[in-house]
Amino acid sequence: MSHEKFLGCIEACQACAVACDHCANACLMEPNVQMLVECIRLDRACALICQTAVTFMASNSPLTTQVCELCARICEACAAECEKHAHHHEHCRQCAEACRRCAEACRNLSIAV
Amino acid sequence: MSHEKFLGCIEACQACAVACDHCANACLMEPNVQMLVECIRLDRACALICQTAVTFMASNSPLTTQVCELCARICEACAAECEKHAHHHEHCRQCAEACRRCAEACRNLSIAV
Amino acid sequence: MSHEKFLGCIEACQACAVACDHCANACLMEPNVQMLVECIRLDRACALICQTAVTFMASNSPLTTQVCELCARICEACAAECEKHAHHHEHCRQCAEACRRCAEACRNLSIAV
Amino acid sequence: MSHEKFLGCIEACQACAVACDHCANACLMEPNVQMLVECIRLDRACALICQTAVTFMASNSPLTTQVCELCARICEACAAECEKHAHHHEHCRQCAEACRRCAEACRNLSIAV
Repeated sequence: MSHEKFLGCIEACQACAVACDHCANACLMEPNVQMLVECIRLDRACALICQTAVTFMASNSPLTTQVCELCARICEACAAECEKHAHHHEHCRQCAEACRRCAEACRNLSIAV
Repeated sequence: MSHEKFLGCIEACQACAVACDHCANACLMEPNVQMLVECIRLDRACALICQTAVTFMASNSPLTTQVCELCARICEACAAECEKHAHHHEHCRQCAEACRRCAEACRNLSIAV
Repeated sequence: MSHEKFLGCIEACQACAVACDHCANACLMEPNVQMLVECIRLDRACALICQTAVTFMASNSPLTTQVCELCARICEACAAECEKHAHHHEHCRQCAEACRRCAEACRNLSIAV
Repeated sequence: MSHEKFLGCIEACQACAVACDHCANACLMEPNVQMLVECIRLDRACALICQTAVTFMASNSPLTTQVCELCARICEACAAECEKHAHHHEHCRQCAEACRRCAEACRNLSIAV
């Protein structure tokens, strides 16, 4: 009946959304921005689905588990792309880490519920 | 390379999001609001996933098809709930219709892509 | 060049968005939901502008200060409404508190920048 | 009591959000993406505030006029940036046009209400 069971996953999604939006903007400022186009596109998609998942969890909405499952998939795709650039760009490294943590939290939630 | 293949589905999702937000607010103003709690909750969830789907399609984002598939499921759940109240409340009838149209557009897109 | 100056305000907005979405849903479940309609409407508006402000800050977007100013106003309106119900409903009390903290963080940011 | 007074402005904001998200993604794909960084950043900000304004209007939310006022300002900033690239990129030209229409619709609404 409450959003408390979601608190850990909400925090992971919030942190991931901020890391992705920050990474997207930081990528845009890099001299090699053309190498980072796919990273920017995935960052935006990932930030948005994470925020959507937060709202579903905080509202204890119907179909929250399904939103979190999809969120996990998009986080994994974003992490895989960010990891390619992680040794060159600290924002990509941090973003990949936040995405992996968020994907795990979302997967655990789908199994537990 | 373009968002034009999505235009019909974008329009259906935009119309559905507005119908859902309007229905949620109109339900809150009804004297029998206690009968409409589940409708309000689904309306909010549906409006949000529709807006999320619009952004994915307009950005030609990775994993757009998966977002549209989930959008179709949530639209169908919202339509089923709204239809229970459609003979009493015109906003529920209109919302159910918008949800059915949007679900169909999202399903067609998943098959076509 | 960074979103770090925004970190405190981002956290306040994230906490406020979750408190508002949770309060809106908890209000819907109360037996006296008809007394809480305005609270639910403000909760939804406040949650949305808080999430919008988070994205602006995390992306270091143009016009972030103006978004935070508007966020502060909506948080204050939501806090004032929630405070009316704070002695009856713990979720309203917690939400009012989160809104006040967020309003202050957003106001400080507008002055500092 | 209804969202019908907002219908014209809702449509302008929806069209603007889609034009901005599409323009941002198309800019990312251009060979001269480094010239378009500010355009991409404003596109993202503008798309988000337009979607926020749509939800406020469709929900007949408190403080809708203030959200539309801010939306007009961000649309004007985005239009001014897109116009710099309008003779080179059709997506920028179309986006600038959608932003100008949306800014006007939002301004008219602030005056009328």
